[in-house]
Amino acid sequence: MEFAKRLDNVSGSAIRAIFALLAQPGMISFAGGNPSPESFPKEDIAEISASLLCENGSAILQYGGTPGIGSLKSTVIDMMKSRSISAKPEEIIITSGATQGIGLAAKTLVNPGDVILAESPTFIGALQTFLTYEADVKGVEMDEEGMVIADLEKKLKAYRPKFVYTIPTFQNPTGRTMSFERRKQMVALCKQHGVLILEDDPYCDLRYSGQPVPPIKSLDDDNVVIYLMSFSKIISPGLRVGAAIADPRIIEKYNIAKQGEDLHTANLSQEIVNAYMRSGKAEPHIESISAQYRDKRDAMLKKMEEWPESITYTKPDGGLFIWASLPGHMNAVDLFKQCVDAGVAYVPGVHFFPEGGHENTMRLNFSMASFDQIEKGMNILKGVIEKSI
Amino acid sequence: MEFAKRLDNVSGSAIRAIFALLAQPGMISFAGGNPSPESFPKEDIAEISASLLCENGSAILQYGGTPGIGSLKSTVIDMMKSRSISAKPEEIIITSGATQGIGLAAKTLVNPGDVILAESPTFIGALQTFLTYEADVKGVEMDEEGMVIADLEKKLKAYRPKFVYTIPTFQNPTGRTMSFERRKQMVALCKQHGVLILEDDPYCDLRYSGQPVPPIKSLDDDNVVIYLMSFSKIISPGLRVGAAIADPRIIEKYNIAKQGEDLHTANLSQEIVNAYMRSGKAEPHIESISAQYRDKRDAMLKKMEEWPESITYTKPDGGLFIWASLPGHMNAVDLFKQCVDAGVAYVPGVHFFPEGGHENTMRLNFSMASFDQIEKGMNILKGVIEKSI
Repeated sequence: MEFAKRLDNVSGSAIRAIFALLAQPGMISFAGGNPSPESFPKEDIAEISASLLCENGSAILQYGGTPGIGSLKSTVIDMMKSRSISAKPEEIIITSGATQGIGLAAKTLVNPGDVILAESPTFIGALQTFLTYEADVKGVEMDEEGMVIADLEKKLKAYRPKFVYTIPTFQNPTGRTMSFERRKQMVALCKQHGVLILEDDPYCDLRYSGQPVPPIKSLDDDNVVIYLMSFSKIISPGLRVGAAIADPRIIEKYNIAKQGEDLHTANLSQEIVNAYMRSGKAEPHIESISAQYRDKRDAMLKKMEEWPESITYTKPDGGLFIWASLPGHMNAVDLFKQCVDAGVAYVPGVHFFPEGGHENTMRLNFSMASFDQIEKGMNILKGVIEKSI
Repeated sequence: MEFAKRLDNVSGSAIRAIFALLAQPGMISFAGGNPSPESFPKEDIAEISASLLCENGSAILQYGGTPGIGSLKSTVIDMMKSRSISAKPEEIIITSGATQGIGLAAKTLVNPGDVILAESPTFIGALQTFLTYEADVKGVEMDEEGMVIADLEKKLKAYRPKFVYTIPTFQNPTGRTMSFERRKQMVALCKQHGVLILEDDPYCDLRYSGQPVPPIKSLDDDNVVIYLMSFSKIISPGLRVGAAIADPRIIEKYNIAKQGEDLHTANLSQEIVNAYMRSGKAEPHIESISAQYRDKRDAMLKKMEEWPESITYTKPDGGLFIWASLPGHMNAVDLFKQCVDAGVAYVPGVHFFPEGGHENTMRLNFSMASFDQIEKGMNILKGVIEKSI
């Protein structure tokens, strides 16, 4: 059986092997990126769902339009105002999660061999998706303030990329937030080089400390930014609803490309998200999960203070992840096996780097585990690390 | 702005122009392929949805696995038994409608320039999707019994296609059903040439007359068939749920390719479909909509008896469509404008042909319009045609 060349370099098997291990009974997982299972407003959504279907079931159960439901687009427009982004309906398409917005960027913009720049490290799912479109992903160095602008400029010139993929706020996997100054520099540079920016922003509402930093899209007066938002982290990832905001010509291409994927995002998911956002319940809900995640972040960071001093780690102001760097001689891939045997899992950092390497790094998720699991799991992790250091 | 080459040949603008017209007040539409809006079991689904979310909301609202929910896969396996198809869980992936199963076939199997064979005429959505993967779609002649086997054999030899796309039962757009004999010949030929078959079967449960013909997949002892089923026509298209059944190696590739689209089909949609299929309500529901569509088909066919004798048309045993051929000198694209001005719409047949032409043909949908609309719309159509013949 001969498959398409575009899938040759994609297996995802290492990551899937990790996630298969999480199914083991009793395993404490700091590996996923899932919201806390207690965080979902399931009773509210049950009530909303039943009432929507009774009132408007004939339309909800019928085929919908590919761009998405108009009232949800209006809701997204309203939400964007608080992020200093102004958008018109023709600049929006509802997507099946921000994930689809990432895939559609590659599908509509990338020819085989084209370069995409991305933070090094970056989101594994995006890396895999870019590979399925035969993109050549090059990493841009990052520090505590996000992408290093000098390295970005060098690589914009050297590679003439199709776009720059960035998660500027509470980045996956590092938890870092790009500074306001860097955001301005990034827009100016990309505009100057005629290169688009794909800004993936699923975590921005989950802020636990520090001051909000406006999205790159809000600094964009020339429509060089494709902005991806998501309802996965603030309501539910299982409903699969997000949106892309961009130049209408890009949205038009997204529309055509989405027709050959799922035709449209499930109407019931769209209507539930819309009704919930307009119910007055979303804001207190987001405050409540943020408070919970803040405490979990603090609990995990507190345990990390007990780790050997040679280990460095990020202290994120929001999002779901902490990023740790062990001493250079240590290998978080080897260590992973010992940790799993001892009952705790994380994701070795190597998988997040476009060019590999950095075997001494690891990503820790603090949203999914309970406080007890954080306490117990971090103790196990410390024990294994101390034995190997 | 420079887009990917794969989207160069796809605009869909002719079709979208047609569907934009349908929004005009009072327009009678025989153009769509939608289920009747009265056909949806909205109260049952409202009840099921609320109960699922209350009982199992934490899992439903969380991320799911890309292959789909296990219990829904079991339901699909059970449904397939009545179609004489036996499938194992690793041979199934839940898709966001059969549409996604079509797109994933192209994504996982087609390199730019590869040939796909398809019935001439065939489903517009599939044609457009195949173009986005830069496939070269060649039409295979068809008659009342489906694909003409001699032409299929000639083109299998001439083009060495990546796969043959077929809708063997109540085909879109013709309403025709491929005979059992032809199905056997098709499997044998494709097996002999080492060519896969993509069998798209969304309509098979909507049979109004004649005897069921087993799917091509049921005659396949060598896993050459990728079988696509859908819940869109029997429960709801707005939920976006279907499934693909194929060789586990193909399902594995579908799984990887779907990760970069929507990650997984919305859990709530999957759970609703599963619970509804297991509720005991699905069978009487399908019988009830079939009875309704049978009457609508009969109403439309009865009106067509009044048309000039030089017009031929199909008399489908099921599905949603009738296919009409006007005398060769007539042009259904020109006629379309007059019909729309007079308040009735259809889809000109030319759009369904991989190589174009056949401007004298038209597709008529009978499921969406009410009986009154069928009566009135068919009178208008007859008047316009008689003036132009």
